[in-house]
Amino acid sequence: MTEEIGLFEAMYTQKAIRRLKTDPIPDDVVEKLIEAATKAPSGGDRQPWSFIVVRDAEAKRKIGEWYLEAWNATYGQIPAPTREAMSTRMKRVIGSAEHLAFHLAEAPVFVIVCAQAPPDLGGITGASHYGSIFPAVQNLLLAARGLNVGATLTTLHKMHEADVKALLGIPDNFETVALVPLGYPVGKYGPARRRPAQEVTHWERWGEQKS
Amino acid sequence: MTEEIGLFEAMYTQKAIRRLKTDPIPDDVVEKLIEAATKAPSGGDRQPWSFIVVRDAEAKRKIGEWYLEAWNATYGQIPAPTREAMSTRMKRVIGSAEHLAFHLAEAPVFVIVCAQAPPDLGGITGASHYGSIFPAVQNLLLAARGLNVGATLTTLHKMHEADVKALLGIPDNFETVALVPLGYPVGKYGPARRRPAQEVTHWERWGEQKS
Repeated sequence: MTEEIGLFEAMYTQKAIRRLKTDPIPDDVVEKLIEAATKAPSGGDRQPWSFIVVRDAEAKRKIGEWYLEAWNATYGQIPAPTREAMSTRMKRVIGSAEHLAFHLAEAPVFVIVCAQAPPDLGGITGASHYGSIFPAVQNLLLAARGLNVGATLTTLHKMHEADVKALLGIPDNFETVALVPLGYPVGKYGPARRRPAQEVTHWERWGEQKS
Repeated sequence: MTEEIGLFEAMYTQKAIRRLKTDPIPDDVVEKLIEAATKAPSGGDRQPWSFIVVRDAEAKRKIGEWYLEAWNATYGQIPAPTREAMSTRMKRVIGSAEHLAFHLAEAPVFVIVCAQAPPDLGGITGASHYGSIFPAVQNLLLAARGLNVGATLTTLHKMHEADVKALLGIPDNFETVALVPLGYPVGKYGPARRRPAQEVTHWERWGEQKS
């Protein structure tokens, strides 16, 4: 791993990259991203993850159609006046997500992240299930940022969960939790602008400042 | 950020640290971890997160009691023969988790991660909700690893979700998704041993090898 990017630099410049070049991503790069994902923590070290690497044009085309249908049924329904009233930044986010919805299949690779259903241990809840898989997804995205591969976490395919599972032969006891389209970025990674941490930090109790 | 750890080094050596020293963690270190968390991606850039930093001994004691109760009701119920039959590695995981359950309140700081309920946009599911918060939790954990602060993602407090929310004054429309106890590690960070990535990677379709 030569010229390794720093941890904090990677986290502070990780942005959703939704405009992707069609150039292929070498398999060994995809494998590095998945290996990084597998290093994530999971509840009871269950490692409930599986990753499907989809490069096949026909499979991507079908999934892309379902994705666009889901976009049109959700974000695509945002009324024009609501969209007009959005901040410039939010308009850019929606515009770029819309671009992705119309061009998903052009991404050279999809990584479909699957999570095995947890054993029933009484205390298992949504948070413990998803908390055992999204850290792995975040590792995959950070690794992509580190290797300058464009990536973004999407979930709209879940409106066609059963179709996607049938298409890819995914067993019943696995859920597809994320679709990460990969491609070299058209734009570039750069500072992730977020609300200041102080605004979302509470000390001792909700709503209290640091004493 | 002097002597910054590399991204891949951090991911490959991030382990759950459950044996913690009682020495306090400076506030500015906690703030750095939370700032790193806020750089994570979230669906539609909603940034649904809030973080409660709990250092108060009495609050930690109460939460620790609930946590131990939840442990006793779940993992604590694993029959002795089942535990005996576990791999050495799994015994170590369970043993360390048990230690934490009995000593949670001794951690100098808890960070309780809260997620705002998403707007109803039709396509929103568990995965899109939790997929907008656990990447932030993973950033927090990686930042902790980067600054050599011990941390681990826990969710057992959720068996007392209503109690925790009442104690800390958390609004109805927020869910507590994780409790991260922080403290300087008794042991040290080191290689995270996981199943090989090839075993959980499928090419084009479930169960298929790379062609």
